[in-house]
Amino acid sequence: MHRGRLLVISGPSGVGKGSICKKVIEKKKNDVEFSVSMTTRPPREGEVDGENYFFVTTEEFKKKIEENGFLEHARVFKNYYGTPRANVMEKLEAGRDVILEIDIQGAMNIKKAYPEGIFIFILPPSMAELRKRITGRGTESESVIELRLGEALKEISYLDKYDYCVVNEDLDEAAENVIAIITAEHSKVTENIYDMIDKYKEEI
Amino acid sequence: MHRGRLLVISGPSGVGKGSICKKVIEKKKNDVEFSVSMTTRPPREGEVDGENYFFVTTEEFKKKIEENGFLEHARVFKNYYGTPRANVMEKLEAGRDVILEIDIQGAMNIKKAYPEGIFIFILPPSMAELRKRITGRGTESESVIELRLGEALKEISYLDKYDYCVVNEDLDEAAENVIAIITAEHSKVTENIYDMIDKYKEEI
Repeated sequence: MHRGRLLVISGPSGVGKGSICKKVIEKKKNDVEFSVSMTTRPPREGEVDGENYFFVTTEEFKKKIEENGFLEHARVFKNYYGTPRANVMEKLEAGRDVILEIDIQGAMNIKKAYPEGIFIFILPPSMAELRKRITGRGTESESVIELRLGEALKEISYLDKYDYCVVNEDLDEAAENVIAIITAEHSKVTENIYDMIDKYKEEI
Repeated sequence: MHRGRLLVISGPSGVGKGSICKKVIEKKKNDVEFSVSMTTRPPREGEVDGENYFFVTTEEFKKKIEENGFLEHARVFKNYYGTPRANVMEKLEAGRDVILEIDIQGAMNIKKAYPEGIFIFILPPSMAELRKRITGRGTESESVIELRLGEALKEISYLDKYDYCVVNEDLDEAAENVIAIITAEHSKVTENIYDMIDKYKEEI
């Protein structure tokens, strides 16, 4: 049984990384699944505990931090969010790939905790296209759009911390590109291979 | 323009690496092409100079060796075979991927001359299946088959010198796996990316 891979996906807001992740899971649902985050924010209508998030109290969350129970965690305003280590590890040990959509700071923390992860950065085809996508969302004022494009550019400068980058020109193609990366990573000659060589030897 | 990648494909005799390479080129004919070897052996009927091989005299071949004009070369009985450096480089510079099917010794020489190559090893699903494929070819005696299986096992022990391995259970799947490796390699964050970051910066 090969251990699964942890795929860490980042990219500027509006680039479509959420849609790509969903598409990848749709196409590879027997092999790849989402990491479920833990949070102290209350569930919204329709959200299911253990599926959308693990919902916990602030006290429980802080206890888990102390126990080093997160691959990464962050506080956003008054709520905590984190990636529970044991949950991800169980899936990886069971041979399943885990996909984790996360901002750059979170990704960099994951990298420290789990450098074997595969770090993929989603890029827009151009800044003009990113502007269009952000604008298309609705009612953002021009100054907010400029702010977000500046933010995007700052994020893109972290590209060199990632292993792969995928340009999201077409959603389907971008998802296929991520799947190709998964396939290639599973084809890498790693220490697992020595077991295989032994297998061939025994067969002869 | 991104530089193309040199794909070096090896694997034991009978594993089907030739068929995989052909299939990959068929499916990616706009992006990937074969490397054409140079040889001193006379052309067989129907073979076209510059397509199947570059056919040259022994004198021409030896001159090219002296000029360091080969990525690798070898003598097989009284004939020479080699991979002309300039020919491969031109294709790579033009942004095309080049596929080179070669034995392990040749691959190791390529690795010295061009470590940026992508080294892929094709594996049989099992030794039993490899035996079946070798036997299926026709009239090999049992002792020759044993010899070739032993040779295959020796070759498989070089696996750790390769970047990727692909099990050829199904020809189509194995070709798709090689194509996924090509796609992933082109998605790697490399120095080309800094040009892209500059592009995004200029656009804003």
